Amino acid sequence: MKHIEGGVTAAKGFLAGGMYCGIRKNKTKPDLCMILSEKDCTAAAAFTSNLVKGAPILVSKKNLANGHARAVIANSGNANTCNADGVEKAEKMCAIAGAALGVEPSDVVVASTGVIGQVLPIEPIEEAAPVLAKQLSRDGSSMAAKAIMTTDTVQKEAAVELEIGGRIVRMGGIAKGSGMIHPNMCTMLCFVTTDAVIGSETLDKALHEAIGDTFNMVSIDGDTSTNDTIAVLANGMAENSEILPGTPAYEEFLKGLKEICKTLSKMLAKDGEGATKLLVCKTKGAKTEKDAKKVAKGVICSTLFKAAMFGADANWGRVLCAIGYSGAEVDIEKVDVSFSSRAGQVDVCRMGAGIDFSEDLAKKVLSEDEIDVLVTLRDGDCAAEAYGCDLTYDYVKINGDYRT
Amino acid sequence: MKHIEGGVTAAKGFLAGGMYCGIRKNKTKPDLCMILSEKDCTAAAAFTSNLVKGAPILVSKKNLANGHARAVIANSGNANTCNADGVEKAEKMCAIAGAALGVEPSDVVVASTGVIGQVLPIEPIEEAAPVLAKQLSRDGSSMAAKAIMTTDTVQKEAAVELEIGGRIVRMGGIAKGSGMIHPNMCTMLCFVTTDAVIGSETLDKALHEAIGDTFNMVSIDGDTSTNDTIAVLANGMAENSEILPGTPAYEEFLKGLKEICKTLSKMLAKDGEGATKLLVCKTKGAKTEKDAKKVAKGVICSTLFKAAMFGADANWGRVLCAIGYSGAEVDIEKVDVSFSSRAGQVDVCRMGAGIDFSEDLAKKVLSEDEIDVLVTLRDGDCAAEAYGCDLTYDYVKINGDYRT
Repeated sequence: MKHIEGGVTAAKGFLAGGMYCGIRKNKTKPDLCMILSEKDCTAAAAFTSNLVKGAPILVSKKNLANGHARAVIANSGNANTCNADGVEKAEKMCAIAGAALGVEPSDVVVASTGVIGQVLPIEPIEEAAPVLAKQLSRDGSSMAAKAIMTTDTVQKEAAVELEIGGRIVRMGGIAKGSGMIHPNMCTMLCFVTTDAVIGSETLDKALHEAIGDTFNMVSIDGDTSTNDTIAVLANGMAENSEILPGTPAYEEFLKGLKEICKTLSKMLAKDGEGATKLLVCKTKGAKTEKDAKKVAKGVICSTLFKAAMFGADANWGRVLCAIGYSGAEVDIEKVDVSFSSRAGQVDVCRMGAGIDFSEDLAKKVLSEDEIDVLVTLRDGDCAAEAYGCDLTYDYVKINGDYRT
Repeated sequence: MKHIEGGVTAAKGFLAGGMYCGIRKNKTKPDLCMILSEKDCTAAAAFTSNLVKGAPILVSKKNLANGHARAVIANSGNANTCNADGVEKAEKMCAIAGAALGVEPSDVVVASTGVIGQVLPIEPIEEAAPVLAKQLSRDGSSMAAKAIMTTDTVQKEAAVELEIGGRIVRMGGIAKGSGMIHPNMCTMLCFVTTDAVIGSETLDKALHEAIGDTFNMVSIDGDTSTNDTIAVLANGMAENSEILPGTPAYEEFLKGLKEICKTLSKMLAKDGEGATKLLVCKTKGAKTEKDAKKVAKGVICSTLFKAAMFGADANWGRVLCAIGYSGAEVDIEKVDVSFSSRAGQVDVCRMGAGIDFSEDLAKKVLSEDEIDVLVTLRDGDCAAEAYGCDLTYDYVKINGDYRT
């Protein structure tokens, strides 16, 4: 497996693009995204576990029920959620995309992200869609990635190339995150495409396996969004033999999908609202995978820990405190904690108690922009990673006045 | 029932005091607190549910096992948690207090609050305890309340007077909170005294009933501390007939205890680290009390909602989003949301969808320092309240560099 360029259009037969249509006030930022496959795709998706579900999710779920899709339409600037006419508007977006792209409306995945509870203006989308349809290209991943950004500061793309049964298979994706990120099924918005030949049920299985270790291990602020959506489309143009569960080909495909999801997850975490640092909690020696995940996510979600990391303060007591309330079965008196980054590693806690360490070295380690928190539990063989970011003044600033 | 002055020494026969002993660097802030009853007390307590438990908790639990106590010793500036010699030091604190006050060490409740994982220096306590013992007085509640403060900006005292069986019964308490506040048994530190005649089992029952609706409904930052402790001491000097469960006297006593706990809970929430506003989420119309509590606490804990309140932004979508992931059984399409304060009330969401409202009025309502979020679920008769605060730049500042 190797990482390649091309994002959501890296795989054969996929076109994408993005443009400004008029939903957002800021005209310099694209707000409408479309992705199209030249051929019919098998498709799978996962959505938020929030009881409040964006209208686009209800429509995408229905459209994906047959395991097929050919296109994606998504807008930023408005979540089309908690509106009386939400489903009608989401259906309309599918019809607009279908007409512009020459596909059935029921083969369109629709998604929206932005403010909740404001009526979505459909006219800008209606006007722009035919124009955008003509602009879709094999180089359009970057514009598509930009068009789904909200308070994201960098676009998020990833792609890999695999060999499956002697054939080259490519897959790639785009994602957006930033705030209200604590996925519990998947992340805010993520679209993955591949040219692999794979049935929709197998694709669904692989998708859920992949997100359990990646997107579901990200937390920016503990708020699970109403519009979390990840969809994967496979158009079969790589002409490999069909990938079936329990085969080496499946394992290879899953490895690729996990790599895309993990790469995008880390990009989401690092670009969390106001964030200055990517935090990765790597937990090992847990009794069960569930315990490992609870510990890793508990640490990453701790507000106090996140603020300490912003201040480059090696306050390991907060790591231990978070492990203690994470709900994991842990023997606290066997826990070790270290901080690690490009600048080195500093061990701060052994067997549940503080040890002497150099505050100077700790400051250096924690002043980097990617920090690993290493937690060893000495209770078994299971491991997990969780991804988050520091809590900063800018998070408060951005979210103190998001709507205006 | 009426509120009275006197805090933790409002009840007959209780003395208290606080002084600087040398644990904290800042010499202008007292860091050692003692409370003494003239007579033996029945006693009850509740402690953190965090697996990481401060050493003082282990010792206090043991000392309270017989349902009796006479004194409290508590320090701020150091949590005496995650230290190899923690239990030894906590035992030593009880011995020191016992010797200074002339009571059995096993009749002393001990508590510590401050940074985790630094060895507690015992010498300053050893030297200061005999001096402090002589200073304890019937007017000492305020100094005792000051001595347990960490990043708290105001001292927290409350007291009430009840009539039980024709006798005047008084009870009062002190508390400290600020950060790492998301109690799951009780709050950071709270000591309540009463002159009521009540058995320790009845006292324990009343305490747990009271904290379920008060301290356990507070969240500052979602972090459950390692040292949460609430202890209540009853010395019987009011000479009422013994309060027994299931009687009107018990109900009256419980009402008083709840009032103390609720008053102190709101003080904790309003004085959360960096907070500028008290937020109270009042939920009604829930199917069960559990659902009502989940909704109220879910809203109060939402980082995004807290940041919006700091910015006086009526972003009700975040309230709905938090209700959606709170885990409560709710029909989102029946939910109403309003914001209310001294400046008036503004209705922002009806039957799960946005309604037109005056942004000017909303700004006025949300610019006050005590804000109620009113959530109506139309699903039943149960109600709950939760207490929290806004998320501000200062929270980040305080916690970005707490240890130094």
